[in-house]
Amino acid sequence: MSESITLPPPDPPERLVARMRAVGAAAYHDRHPFHLLMHQGRLTRRQLQAWIENRFYYQWRIPKKDAIILAKADDPEFRRAWIGRIIDHDGDAAREGGIRKWLRLAQAAGLDPDEVLSLRKVLPAVRFAVDAYVELVATRPLVEAVASSLTELFAPELMANRVEALERLYPWLDRAGLDYFRGRLAEAPRDAAFGLDFVVSHCPTRAQQDRAIDALTTKCHILWSLLDAIHFAYVTPGWAPPLWNGAD
Amino acid sequence: MSESITLPPPDPPERLVARMRAVGAAAYHDRHPFHLLMHQGRLTRRQLQAWIENRFYYQWRIPKKDAIILAKADDPEFRRAWIGRIIDHDGDAAREGGIRKWLRLAQAAGLDPDEVLSLRKVLPAVRFAVDAYVELVATRPLVEAVASSLTELFAPELMANRVEALERLYPWLDRAGLDYFRGRLAEAPRDAAFGLDFVVSHCPTRAQQDRAIDALTTKCHILWSLLDAIHFAYVTPGWAPPLWNGAD
Repeated sequence: MSESITLPPPDPPERLVARMRAVGAAAYHDRHPFHLLMHQGRLTRRQLQAWIENRFYYQWRIPKKDAIILAKADDPEFRRAWIGRIIDHDGDAAREGGIRKWLRLAQAAGLDPDEVLSLRKVLPAVRFAVDAYVELVATRPLVEAVASSLTELFAPELMANRVEALERLYPWLDRAGLDYFRGRLAEAPRDAAFGLDFVVSHCPTRAQQDRAIDALTTKCHILWSLLDAIHFAYVTPGWAPPLWNGAD
Repeated sequence: MSESITLPPPDPPERLVARMRAVGAAAYHDRHPFHLLMHQGRLTRRQLQAWIENRFYYQWRIPKKDAIILAKADDPEFRRAWIGRIIDHDGDAAREGGIRKWLRLAQAAGLDPDEVLSLRKVLPAVRFAVDAYVELVATRPLVEAVASSLTELFAPELMANRVEALERLYPWLDRAGLDYFRGRLAEAPRDAAFGLDFVVSHCPTRAQQDRAIDALTTKCHILWSLLDAIHFAYVTPGWAPPLWNGAD
């Protein structure tokens, strides 16, 4: 008698989407205590600056991450859709990219953009977390790499709140520096819709769906760890690592 | 008229070794507040357990890291010297390896070794830091990969203090579980002497020496970040990440 192995059936699309939204509701970094402090106006100038310096490393690596995804894709239609993300960050002849906009945010916060660009102020643990994102994308299948980008589903609300909170609660911040977030308000929903459709239609088995959920959860942990590291060094307990160039 | 570029001369061997020892004196994790708490007997049972669970991931990845170094080496003499590290951790017919010894430490601390082995209790930030070590070794030249291993120069004193401190200050810990540290007391000096000699003799330029120092510093930051993450989740402020399997 042959054994039959019963595999769980794949979730229908609406259930898979609900599972992904549940990951965001539980683990997206809008719930992190450091972001709550930020949006309550309770960060010092130096703490907000440290966030801008460290988060820059994430902005810096994003186009590289997207180039790795581009290089994994065999479908010209997919690449045509995805390449816009790289241009959004790097810019082109017509538009300033997200990296430049972030450096203008740094300037609006009283930082030297060249020093931010030097990456000297990036905490080692922030580097390890962000590099883990690039590594995840490089080593997992395309559909899991795309799934890890779906934190974009949760970003627009955070961005809208942030523009409002930074303008109102940190009056010393030049509001011309907030263009980055305004840009993401338009880009993130478009990118997320494409990515969501791709993941839903390219996970035919329950096992693949579970791996996509895992990739999205790991991405949430990456963003969360980034804030943990900033919180640890600049808020509580407030300890920076030794022999670190950014200590001041 | 042709321009002449003056490169700084390489440091003589004793000066290079002194620079490496200075990295350890400033940034090796024996100075981390979590280790100070441990060696003062001030960790709770759960905090010490969490360290054992998380540090296991480092033990788990070390032989993989050493296999990557082995695969980078072209010299049979080098490989003959280096292969012993993998056997030290994985064991062979005659000897129990470091991974098994660590699981016996876990058992001595009242943990379920199978759960430790499942890696469920490993904090995401610990995973990112340890994976950064494997990635450093995979992506940098052999001599820098070897340089990153030279935290072994600083380990013996820490290990000797640890066996004494754990025996004396944590009487609930079964002392049969301390074999791992006793083993490292013999292995680390032998390994470090070989690695140090290799690095000193394979960095003919100042630029290469500086990159070796940088690799060793980054390794110190990796070990330091590992303790930061445990401290953050289990001591101060005591926040574990959401949707993390190990939360309890």
